[in-house]
Amino acid sequence: MIKISIIGSGNVAQHLITAFNKSEEVQIVQIFSRKKPINSFAPEIEWITDWEKLLPVDVFIIAVSDDAIAEVSQKITLINQLVVHTSGSVALEKISNHNRRGVFYPLQTFTKGKEVDFSKIPICIETEFSADLEVLRKLAQKLSQKTFLINSEQRKSLHVAAVFVNNFVNHLYQLGNEICQENQIPFGILEALINETSSKIATLTPQEAQTGPAKRNDQLTIDAHLKFLENDFTKQSIYKLLTQSIQENEQKL
Amino acid sequence: MIKISIIGSGNVAQHLITAFNKSEEVQIVQIFSRKKPINSFAPEIEWITDWEKLLPVDVFIIAVSDDAIAEVSQKITLINQLVVHTSGSVALEKISNHNRRGVFYPLQTFTKGKEVDFSKIPICIETEFSADLEVLRKLAQKLSQKTFLINSEQRKSLHVAAVFVNNFVNHLYQLGNEICQENQIPFGILEALINETSSKIATLTPQEAQTGPAKRNDQLTIDAHLKFLENDFTKQSIYKLLTQSIQENEQKL
Repeated sequence: MIKISIIGSGNVAQHLITAFNKSEEVQIVQIFSRKKPINSFAPEIEWITDWEKLLPVDVFIIAVSDDAIAEVSQKITLINQLVVHTSGSVALEKISNHNRRGVFYPLQTFTKGKEVDFSKIPICIETEFSADLEVLRKLAQKLSQKTFLINSEQRKSLHVAAVFVNNFVNHLYQLGNEICQENQIPFGILEALINETSSKIATLTPQEAQTGPAKRNDQLTIDAHLKFLENDFTKQSIYKLLTQSIQENEQKL
Repeated sequence: MIKISIIGSGNVAQHLITAFNKSEEVQIVQIFSRKKPINSFAPEIEWITDWEKLLPVDVFIIAVSDDAIAEVSQKITLINQLVVHTSGSVALEKISNHNRRGVFYPLQTFTKGKEVDFSKIPICIETEFSADLEVLRKLAQKLSQKTFLINSEQRKSLHVAAVFVNNFVNHLYQLGNEICQENQIPFGILEALINETSSKIATLTPQEAQTGPAKRNDQLTIDAHLKFLENDFTKQSIYKLLTQSIQENEQKL
């Protein structure tokens, strides 16, 4: 049995609590958050709001906003505990060094109210001391079959890559949605295309999977699309820049 | 039984031939292409290279590159036939008017050698004469449960939207892939995130599904990412522009 406590009650904290709560080999001892939520979704776990009440456990997981990690880690009154954060973009060193530090970064997008299947989520772990690696790896394996040793420098690059393939991709869906709405077309018509595009990368590299007017150097179609977007400066700029980037990529080959 | 002939032997033509060939209610009478492929994948169908040999059928499907549609349609020696093209970006009027014109546009990305499940692919149809609509709709329904009446103006906008959610999205995967490679991280680590991002839009609007530093106005993280990309002008420009576009969107709400 691995004993853990969660610090935080936001989106990531809630998903972790729900997931760990299902494991019989992990016990969530306490959840610390400044405000106890009105509808507690894990009534059997002790909620505390007072740092003095924190009990020693195997792993403390700080799941708060990136900006608050350093400050929160300083408030832990216990010393020489294994304290990890869950952020893709914060260095291990931001955690106060009165405890043993680590990172437990589930590489996924968490949406409030939409349960995720942790078994398929890669968990990127890192520890300050190699002696702590084993317990963190075991904890990760309680949730996921995919655990990766990723150092802080790699994690930073991974987070940037994740912004491209998740946040920016979702924004392109939004732009596609807007174009559909403006032309009385149901956005659902694009769903099959969106799913095929994402599932392709399981069998092809993105380079191999690339299609479209930019890749084909089909200037007639590109010009027609830019004209179509002439009253939407932002969408037109994005169209131009991504077309140019695809063409630069083709030239590199 | 609907009798059709296919003009063309490229990627889309091959996918259509494979799919229609499976239907017992559609008969492919002839395939016209300038060169007969060495390995014919549909040996039981007559391949012709001579326009004079074309027989009348219910629907002629021109599946050639966008630029060639007009010219190919003029070469059809028969008159008053229903002739459709399969392109997202070419107007119905580009087909020669010595025949009855239409569009049969399967909204999907076709990759050579990767079979697609047509039953889930939206097929956008349009006909010059309303009397032709029924046969084209029936033909579409032999392949797909999802058929949409989309006029040429809407189809143009749909094609632009498709470039955003397919070609550009795939290119963002490519940029993520490059960032991973440069930092000795396997690209597969991002697969779960990519799949979750695309499957979210079945239950949430892209606007609701948006997360990340741009949406949160997390300027510290944005600055760190831009610094990380400082030696890659194109990626940095894309990061800036998409971040700005996400933030403009948030302000509109």
